[in-house]
Amino acid sequence: MKKSIAIDMDNVIVDIEGHYIHWYEKSFGIRLDKSALIGKPEGSAFPKPEAIREFLCTPGFFKEAPTMPGAVEAVRQLAEDFEVFIVSAAMEFPQSLSEKYEWLQEHLPFISWKSIVFCGSKQVIDTDFMIDDHVKNLKHFKNQGLLFTACHNVSITGYTRVNNWEEATEYLYAAVQ
Amino acid sequence: MKKSIAIDMDNVIVDIEGHYIHWYEKSFGIRLDKSALIGKPEGSAFPKPEAIREFLCTPGFFKEAPTMPGAVEAVRQLAEDFEVFIVSAAMEFPQSLSEKYEWLQEHLPFISWKSIVFCGSKQVIDTDFMIDDHVKNLKHFKNQGLLFTACHNVSITGYTRVNNWEEATEYLYAAVQ
Repeated sequence: MKKSIAIDMDNVIVDIEGHYIHWYEKSFGIRLDKSALIGKPEGSAFPKPEAIREFLCTPGFFKEAPTMPGAVEAVRQLAEDFEVFIVSAAMEFPQSLSEKYEWLQEHLPFISWKSIVFCGSKQVIDTDFMIDDHVKNLKHFKNQGLLFTACHNVSITGYTRVNNWEEATEYLYAAVQ
Repeated sequence: MKKSIAIDMDNVIVDIEGHYIHWYEKSFGIRLDKSALIGKPEGSAFPKPEAIREFLCTPGFFKEAPTMPGAVEAVRQLAEDFEVFIVSAAMEFPQSLSEKYEWLQEHLPFISWKSIVFCGSKQVIDTDFMIDDHVKNLKHFKNQGLLFTACHNVSITGYTRVNNWEEATEYLYAAVQ
């Protein structure tokens, strides 16, 4: 039986940090380098941190976000050998529900609606692996969690870390051999 | 620690069968009695069964659906003594995502966004109890599933059945005593 993976969206398959930078520049004419975000809580590196939460509530924000490097190819490959679920804590921003669905249809059309989960808390999710950039999602997880490196989580220890999709797929295939 | 319950929406807290009857009458001028639906697969009792699937894809259909008798009071009570999650297989009808969210805000405002899950398959859901009217959702469930009686499932055996919210709450409180 194939092992199952719950794959997060923002900062894992969606380059939401890059999208913050892009929208911030579009809104305020100030472009931050991604390195300025390293080690800081999400949004806090921007001169107007409150703008980031406003972006998250703005129609169109999630729909336009770019993919993470290597994410589409990696998820396509994993979907052949694992049972892949896309699990996003989308419920805090209900306007994002339809946009995240459309985003998945556009960028990962090989993912069936049967394999999509939009939730509030991820504590009810039971898969063999979970890939996520937030400890709040991994800390209740019973099986193997993988902390996907994002600027905001670089200082966190105590979790199995993967820095990019190459490392993530390498870990997953080694784990099931 | 409180035990957790995954509670389905359609036919469990949402009277979707009654809503089919209402919309069918509104569309075609023919009113079926609920008894005509008993023992038949969903939608098949109506002269034009394909209309039911069209309703499911029509904006506004889910938003306007009425509550099941006793559901709001029962879920409000259970939410005090259990960890309640509303888990709906909404992903097949993506236009329903925002409507189901709004429905919950209107009818069960005491349910936080943190406790809502919209999914395709429920096979990744891990709670102590699951209340659902569909065997497809209960058959993979590892813990205690409760089959909530709906017209389409009256002939099904092999599951712990609850016929209404009074029986459901009675079962759940007895199970944790």
